[in-house]
This record gives sequence, C-alpha cells and structure tokens, in this order.
Amino acid sequence: MTASPDDSIALVGFDADDTLWRSQDYFDAAQLEFERIVGRYVDLGDADAQQRLYELEKRNVEIFGYGVKSMALSMIEAAVAITGERISGADVHRIVGLAKDLLQHPVELLPGIAEAVERIASRHPVVLITKGDLFHQEAKVRRCGLAHWFGRIEIVSEKDASTYARVLSEFDLPASRFVMIGNSLRSDIAPVLQLGGWGIHVPYHTTWAHENEADVAADAPRLRVVRDARELPDAVAALAAQAHAS
Amino acid sequence: MTASPDDSIALVGFDADDTLWRSQDYFDAAQLEFERIVGRYVDLGDADAQQRLYELEKRNVEIFGYGVKSMALSMIEAAVAITGERISGADVHRIVGLAKDLLQHPVELLPGIAEAVERIASRHPVVLITKGDLFHQEAKVRRCGLAHWFGRIEIVSEKDASTYARVLSEFDLPASRFVMIGNSLRSDIAPVLQLGGWGIHVPYHTTWAHENEADVAADAPRLRVVRDARELPDAVAALAAQAHAS
Repeated sequence: MTASPDDSIALVGFDADDTLWRSQDYFDAAQLEFERIVGRYVDLGDADAQQRLYELEKRNVEIFGYGVKSMALSMIEAAVAITGERISGADVHRIVGLAKDLLQHPVELLPGIAEAVERIASRHPVVLITKGDLFHQEAKVRRCGLAHWFGRIEIVSEKDASTYARVLSEFDLPASRFVMIGNSLRSDIAPVLQLGGWGIHVPYHTTWAHENEADVAADAPRLRVVRDARELPDAVAALAAQAHAS
Repeated sequence: MTASPDDSIALVGFDADDTLWRSQDYFDAAQLEFERIVGRYVDLGDADAQQRLYELEKRNVEIFGYGVKSMALSMIEAAVAITGERISGADVHRIVGLAKDLLQHPVELLPGIAEAVERIASRHPVVLITKGDLFHQEAKVRRCGLAHWFGRIEIVSEKDASTYARVLSEFDLPASRFVMIGNSLRSDIAPVLQLGGWGIHVPYHTTWAHENEADVAADAPRLRVVRDARELPDAVAALAAQAHAS
C-alpha cells in the first residue's frame, strides 16, 4: 500500500484513435465511398461486399498490419475481386485518393478529452500507446495539440499483452500500478487486465468489428466503463483508490 | 578524454535495410516487375515511366511515408496515370501482389554482418535505428536473428537530425560519443555528422536515389567509409581512438 491513493497508480496510458480523436468515422466514410464506387459494377444489396472486404481485411492485416495504407491496398484487392477484374483505372485511382484524404484530414479531438488529459496528467505520468501506421500516427500526434502532456509516445504494431509488458518493463513498473484508457476492448483493455493492470473502457459510437472481439466481462473488477471523456479523471481516481485499498 | 579509447564511444547505432540485410534489391526487382506490367500498355523505352514513378514516389512519401505499402500505392497510382487509366484489374492485383511478396520474403543478412554486430556489441552498447513501415520492420527484426544484440530498437518515420537528437537525449548522451553505421548518406550519416557525431558509411551496391541526396564530403573528419561489413569493428575502434584523442 502506498502513501496516497494517487501514488498507487504510477502510469496512465491513453489510446489515441477514437479515444483522443475521431478516427473510425473517417474509415467508415471511406468504406461507404468504396461501396459507392464498387456498387456501380455489382449489386451490393446483400451486404456481401462488406463481408468479403472484412474477411479480406482480416487476412491482410497479418501481412500488411493496420492503418490507412493497409486498408487501401485491401480495398483495391477487394474491388478487383468483387468486380471480376472489371474495376476501371479511374476508380482504382479514386480508392488511392480515399487513402490520401484519410491521411491528410485534420485531427478532431473528442469532446472533453483535452481537459481530461490535462487533469489526469496533473496527477499521474501519462503515456500515449497507439497502434497503426507510424507515419500517420506521428502526423496526428503532431497536429493534435496534446503531445506535450505525454511523457512518452509509443507507436506499436500490435497492442497485445507482450507489448504492454515491454512498455511497463521500460518504465520498471508492475502492471498493478498501470491504468490503460481506450475504446477497444481487444487492444486497450483485455491485454492490460490479463497482465494484472487496470482498464477504463470508453466505448466509441462506432468501432471496427475486429476491435470488439475480446473476452472481457463487463463486471471485471479492475475495469471501469465510462461513456464520456469528462468522466475519465474521476474514473482514474476511483481505480487509484481501489488499487490503494487492495 | 575518457579512460580507454573504447569508452569514448558510448553507443553505436546500426541502420537495418541494406546495412544488416538485403532490401533495395527486392524493391528493384519489384520495380522491374512493375515496369514489365506497365510496359504491356506503353513503350517504356525512354525510361520516362521510371522518372514519373520516382517523381510521384517523392511526392507521395510526404503523404504516405516510406515502405512497401507506400511504394505499392504509388505504383498503382503511376500505373493508372502512365496507362491513361487503361490498366486492367488483373494487373492492378499483380501490383498489390508485389507488395505482399516484398512484405513476406525471408530476411537475408549481408555477408559478415552477424559477426560484425557481435564483435561491436561486445565492446559498446548497440541500438538499431531504422526507418520505414513499423509492421514490416518489426517483422524483419523478429526474423533476422540479431535482435538480441540490440539494447533498443527504434523504428522511426524519418531519420533526420531531430530524430537522432531525441534518441541520444533518451540515452542522455552527447552526439560526440555516438557512432552511426549505415548505407545511406542522407539518413544515416549526414544528420549524425551535423549533430557532432561519428559516421561509418557502408555503401550498398544499389541504393534508392533519394537516399544519396546528401551533402557529405568524402573526407569529412568524423566519417569512415568501409566497403565490407567485416571491416566495421576496426572502423569503430579507429573512430573510438580518434574520439579519445580529440
């Protein structure tokens, strides 16, 4: 047991996409535009294309990793397959354009998150732990206006237990003193709980299906769920008190 | 001045692509295959396509960053442009396939490098500092069999003076105690010399034109050039002696 409840938590991690800033909405819009393009060749009424793209995307994640460029290459591959190779060069170019637009849109912080990060950073060291394309994530971090709060920014290729264990070992911290905040049960919450850490799940209104494939009980004792970034500082304080008492 | 010449150098950085393992050859082979695909639509006798791809690639690096996926999206965009949108779906798919092949090929270490890393690591802390796609670089680091020698692996989006300054500040080291080893004058040597560090240039038989766009004098006093990885341990020792004497 440590001196004050605050001290029982020595590090707070934030996810970035759909935790700090809007991301999935842009992917969803690109997905709709993709379907509009491909829908000129084939009838997508049965939502089959979406399913085929999702399957192809999951397989391609193994080869390409996450991120916009991976998505664009998967879309191009799916467009060729779904249209029976009839997709035009102009439409292929439109799909490349979707990727360029996604990589260049302005960063839009989620409501209340700037204040929440500031309040939490005034009590605990905070780090940003985000997955995806290094180049794109760095660009967003530069543009978001919050980078100065984070003692460290970790951009990783996969957020699993071994990644969190490595980050914690670099901070020389046991997981029991670490809270992770994020919108993905699979990437932000499950691996941290598994290591013995604490999690605050902030569900986003839309999340890539892949990211909700996780086995986390809603009543897990080391987990809080909040619906609004403004509740985050209190949730961290509550977990700190619980860690202090345990 | 420090106790022994070895101590005057406190960190040795290695580049990865075309310094530890073969990389540009695979890109060159993909480029040839790309030209073969596009050459079925237009006469590439004037080498114009290569120039247009290079120009497009340079512009796209600003948006996409480096790496295989960026290259593939650039190639697809160039193929659409060069063929006047006549490129077929099947050929677009072949270009996506070039990217998949590049991402999955085995890692082929350069001759003598495994022994050189081991010898240098027995005298100095060594780190790997590499640029490019996080997912792909991590995959290659895992497969290369040398990862255990490196105290740290930094995968960065751009290797410029500010990146090296950040890495050195995390090690709390002045540049004057750092040697960087790599094949790219632009990314490995020039920024480190600029900071007051030491460089060992190991030219590779083929290097992306972009990477040789650097203003480094061949007789720069803090630079060594070696032609073979087997000469690296002696080159590091020579620089350490020079640093010790200065």
